[in-house]
Amino acid sequence: MNSRLYKFVGRDIGAWSVTHSSVIVGPAFPNVTAIDIVSGDDGSNLAGVEWVLQGVTSNERYVTRSEKKTLVNRQETIGRPDSNNAALIPIRKTAEWWALSQDERREIFEASSKHIAVGLDYLPAIARRLHHCRDLGTAEPFDFLTYFEFKEADEGAFDELVSKLRASEEWKFVDREVDIRMTRCGA
Amino acid sequence: MNSRLYKFVGRDIGAWSVTHSSVIVGPAFPNVTAIDIVSGDDGSNLAGVEWVLQGVTSNERYVTRSEKKTLVNRQETIGRPDSNNAALIPIRKTAEWWALSQDERREIFEASSKHIAVGLDYLPAIARRLHHCRDLGTAEPFDFLTYFEFKEADEGAFDELVSKLRASEEWKFVDREVDIRMTRCGA
Repeated sequence: MNSRLYKFVGRDIGAWSVTHSSVIVGPAFPNVTAIDIVSGDDGSNLAGVEWVLQGVTSNERYVTRSEKKTLVNRQETIGRPDSNNAALIPIRKTAEWWALSQDERREIFEASSKHIAVGLDYLPAIARRLHHCRDLGTAEPFDFLTYFEFKEADEGAFDELVSKLRASEEWKFVDREVDIRMTRCGA
Repeated sequence: MNSRLYKFVGRDIGAWSVTHSSVIVGPAFPNVTAIDIVSGDDGSNLAGVEWVLQGVTSNERYVTRSEKKTLVNRQETIGRPDSNNAALIPIRKTAEWWALSQDERREIFEASSKHIAVGLDYLPAIARRLHHCRDLGTAEPFDFLTYFEFKEADEGAFDELVSKLRASEEWKFVDREVDIRMTRCGA
């Protein structure tokens, strides 16, 4: 199994309790009460499982060296023990997006939509990890699984961040999106 | 299964007969006498199979709109009935390559190595299809499966093309490469 593979397992009980789930755009997606996040070949028990979303972390597709330096200096990693809130936001982009050339996608991603610049304003409070699904061997319902962890006090800032991105030109190319909020079980 | 998934099945008999196989860089790779190419969920018989290499076609990572236009106008597709020669060249790139930012990789890919410009000189004689393996859920021995079809008379030109690319700066980041040449069985 690819060592960069992560699975988000929607089920009846798990490490993260789902507090709210909403479809932002596109078809319905089954609600679950909890989510487990497993990495690599962790052979987790599949009892009570409603769905499994999977994706791999990978090289960045758009950032330049100077942007990467700024990001690396400011960002924190997933797994901070005091981050008791999380969001899993699976996203699919349109065929039109994927037919664009690299320079066109970069132009929309940063020059028009300021995806990196906007995101920087919310570091280090919001930790993120991006998982790619589109080039898995299996047919997947989403192209990306975006995942975020933060303190409860930062959920308002996180809401502001996602609403800015959803208003961007880049998001005109998003045709399926579900927003799942969770708290750490027992926190 | 992902509809963009292709499998190259190395086995005892198959649609393409291997004429020559050589390791360009990196560890040994098992020789086979034939290769079958199957797409999607084609449940092919696995008798006599030595290995299976798999990858998905995907969006281009580096080309600009103007380069894409030129390529699309000049390139032909895999599967021309008079192309009786083929090459499967699986490639892996170093961790250093994958840690580069997008602008650094683009700079090496085209500004220094002229990957697109060099390739254009050999169109439409050489048809190509690129398969990505690095972001599959499974652990794969290569990052890319590059695949080419051409007429027997164009094999010399193809040799010239690959030798130009192997001399480029981009190829300093290739740490595993196998060159497998084939002819269509019965041709």
